[in-house]
Amino acid sequence: MASELVSYQVIGVVHSEHKKLEETPIQPIFAPECKGRVEVFPEFADGLRDIELFSHIYLIYHLHAAKETRLLTKPFLQDKVHGVFSTRSPVRPNHIGLSIVKLAGREGNVLLIEGADILDGTPLIDIKPYSKRFDNIPTQRNGWQDEVDDATAWARGRRSYKGSGKAE
Amino acid sequence: MASELVSYQVIGVVHSEHKKLEETPIQPIFAPECKGRVEVFPEFADGLRDIELFSHIYLIYHLHAAKETRLLTKPFLQDKVHGVFSTRSPVRPNHIGLSIVKLAGREGNVLLIEGADILDGTPLIDIKPYSKRFDNIPTQRNGWQDEVDDATAWARGRRSYKGSGKAE
Repeated sequence: MASELVSYQVIGVVHSEHKKLEETPIQPIFAPECKGRVEVFPEFADGLRDIELFSHIYLIYHLHAAKETRLLTKPFLQDKVHGVFSTRSPVRPNHIGLSIVKLAGREGNVLLIEGADILDGTPLIDIKPYSKRFDNIPTQRNGWQDEVDDATAWARGRRSYKGSGKAE
Repeated sequence: MASELVSYQVIGVVHSEHKKLEETPIQPIFAPECKGRVEVFPEFADGLRDIELFSHIYLIYHLHAAKETRLLTKPFLQDKVHGVFSTRSPVRPNHIGLSIVKLAGREGNVLLIEGADILDGTPLIDIKPYSKRFDNIPTQRNGWQDEVDDATAWARGRRSYKGSGKAE
């Protein structure tokens, strides 16, 4: 069972200004001014109908630049070791990335997004609508993340990206 | 490019009371009383360190019972056709499921969850912590979902599951 594999087809590609990992913010909230384009391959474009009516979407993508797996790791936001499943680090066993981005518009098979924290050329494997009903959870316990103040999170979460830090 | 595949290893299995698809609620909010167990295979168990300090987690899993793909589909909650990426339907090109469940505890390599909307025996491919900082987004535009009132959503989202409807 542990050696079982599942395979998914790449359904598109994410285009962004981020060409270097170390200059790529780690989460959309640290990339408010970063615009991107999500190109969905034409054969899947019909699946986008009505998506432009949602303000936010999940992008699920393959972290193609992640070459390594570690079960214990220090997250970007804190100098303490945690289990990788307690973090959003790319060094997880399966290199799957999840971002909630703002959807600014759609041009045919291309989605215009804001909060692009994704390396240019990243293969896309799924898109789901963010739903207030399902996903907006007022959690109180956020583990080690509660130990990180907002200013530290901002400084570390931006990595070495140089931008205005503000959405237009 | 469109025929490119990515492969992931199954890292565990979700155990729940749901043995039949048609009696499985479609989202955790429609399954408050449904408890489940997420078994992470022992070779990945170190990755769980500190996860019990988060109140909620994302489970990313393979919708192994979904055999079909449709780009246009009616979601469970509404009798209108939408693009599949505007829905959370299992009939998407890649059968990837995403649930935000409440984490009630951890026993070694097993996570005790509440809000289990997942078929028993579902292969697990990733776990990520839900973070208020990253994921709690006060959206205002939720597309077609805004047309569905809460009572209708509850009735349809439960499918034919018979339970108390209340967390203990």
